[in-house]
Amino acid sequence: MPALIAKAREGDPRSVARLISMVENGDPALNEVAAALAKHAGDAQVVGLTGSPGVGKSTTTNELVRALRRSGRRVGVLAVDPSSPFTGGAILGDRIRMQEHTTDPGVYIRSMSSRGQLGGLSAATPQAVRVLEGAGCDVILVETVGVGQAEVEVASLADTTLVLLAPGMGDAIQAVKAGILEIADIFVVNKADRPGADATYRDIQGMLGLGERAAGDWRPQVVRATAVKGEGIDDVVAAIDKHRDWLEKTGELGRRREHRAAVEVEAIALGTLRARLADLHDGTALSDLAVRVAAGEIDPYAAAEELVKGL
Amino acid sequence: MPALIAKAREGDPRSVARLISMVENGDPALNEVAAALAKHAGDAQVVGLTGSPGVGKSTTTNELVRALRRSGRRVGVLAVDPSSPFTGGAILGDRIRMQEHTTDPGVYIRSMSSRGQLGGLSAATPQAVRVLEGAGCDVILVETVGVGQAEVEVASLADTTLVLLAPGMGDAIQAVKAGILEIADIFVVNKADRPGADATYRDIQGMLGLGERAAGDWRPQVVRATAVKGEGIDDVVAAIDKHRDWLEKTGELGRRREHRAAVEVEAIALGTLRARLADLHDGTALSDLAVRVAAGEIDPYAAAEELVKGL
Repeated sequence: MPALIAKAREGDPRSVARLISMVENGDPALNEVAAALAKHAGDAQVVGLTGSPGVGKSTTTNELVRALRRSGRRVGVLAVDPSSPFTGGAILGDRIRMQEHTTDPGVYIRSMSSRGQLGGLSAATPQAVRVLEGAGCDVILVETVGVGQAEVEVASLADTTLVLLAPGMGDAIQAVKAGILEIADIFVVNKADRPGADATYRDIQGMLGLGERAAGDWRPQVVRATAVKGEGIDDVVAAIDKHRDWLEKTGELGRRREHRAAVEVEAIALGTLRARLADLHDGTALSDLAVRVAAGEIDPYAAAEELVKGL
Repeated sequence: MPALIAKAREGDPRSVARLISMVENGDPALNEVAAALAKHAGDAQVVGLTGSPGVGKSTTTNELVRALRRSGRRVGVLAVDPSSPFTGGAILGDRIRMQEHTTDPGVYIRSMSSRGQLGGLSAATPQAVRVLEGAGCDVILVETVGVGQAEVEVASLADTTLVLLAPGMGDAIQAVKAGILEIADIFVVNKADRPGADATYRDIQGMLGLGERAAGDWRPQVVRATAVKGEGIDDVVAAIDKHRDWLEKTGELGRRREHRAAVEVEAIALGTLRARLADLHDGTALSDLAVRVAAGEIDPYAAAEELVKGL
């Protein structure tokens, strides 16, 4: 195990892959892995990237990887996206485009199953982030399709959240409805060479102008890009760097990471407790209570109370 | 409280509404409500109804309500569907069509928020089912949009699961991919007057033919309907009744309900434990551990272990 972690630290992609598989599969040696990785906590900047299907997430991710590599940074990509080329949903063109990075030892790309939660993050995502952090990534891009709760989840995981929009998709309005305005640190109006891009840009700027902000608060940046031509990507990187500076200067970085850690610890603790409940009375406690609930002898709240007492 | 429940038993819609609001909001008197309702457990047949947006769920629900009323049954509808007219997502026409039932005291219709889980069921849904059961409904229709995990959730809640398909939506193929074949008790090929309906019918029948079944197992029914004209709805009701007979005869009804109760009890118990974890050390235990995790002093697994020990 220490050898595996040491090799991952050196950037050996097979060791990184094995460690991520271990966290995905809930390997018994997980505690040991987690303990070894703890001291690297916070080394990487975690950037969430979300948006509706068709908005150009994969192309943008690809171009961001390229730009970050140019500045000498090691980059990890976690694609938790049913429509992503990494997870198999998209057209062959995208898949090939990303492959230019597969021979670059400074880039680690991994798809993660969303485990049935459409667009939602896998429970193992925070642990996979820790593995990439431990493996020396300077920036970790977490790409997830923006439907339902995914945006909120990715925002709670990331230091910096990018929301991609494209002209003519009604995204600006959707963004307000879905509470996206509150979670995005940076808006990228992609496909900026298309008709309607200026209108989308103005819509978002206008809506951001309506919100109240205290002095010193972060004002979400709106950046135009045409990722497919590589245009505007440097501006996106500049906005990410600017946000990082703001996070550090204000202490918000620490607050976000403590919040993230709290969510993570709570989820692991509840997983442990769930397993213990399942094991009570040689695994019969819950099913015995369920029989009584189904028969109307006891209500589910009273049954749950009895179950918890058994712990 | 006993008066409120007694009035709900008599079918007073305001009392039913108040009880459902109590379960939705996690009212402190919830335990009392649950205890009073326990003895009515199992009185109603719970029918889940799911399918992609645009497949005609609301129209079908509406027609099913009408048909069930004709046979003298009291009907409850829980619409946990972001695209449903009840929850505000759909066109005005649908909304008006359902309103014919609002003056019928034998019908209770309630929309439930899906609480950010797109298409997922609200945690309060099982309790709302219990309220409608306690209020004397013979059949409870739970309508939810079929994306991601919703189908699976609705199937675990329902005695009988209907999956709606429509011609030309590629649904038959999608159904296989998403594991729908395993959860549907009845397929309804809606919009059966449209081109391609026969092909969809044959596709589903063909795929059902491929699966192995033991003698006595339920063979999912495939029913053609054109809900907007009221056609085929009696066949759907007949299939629901046939499935109910099979459930009772084979003892599967009891097994499904015990499984459902186990899921419900576990969810309530975990909610309790989560609240206790949050309260540890005057509510500081989790945040103190999170600070140490964020600082890299302890890994999240070790932190979770420490948290659980505190219980």
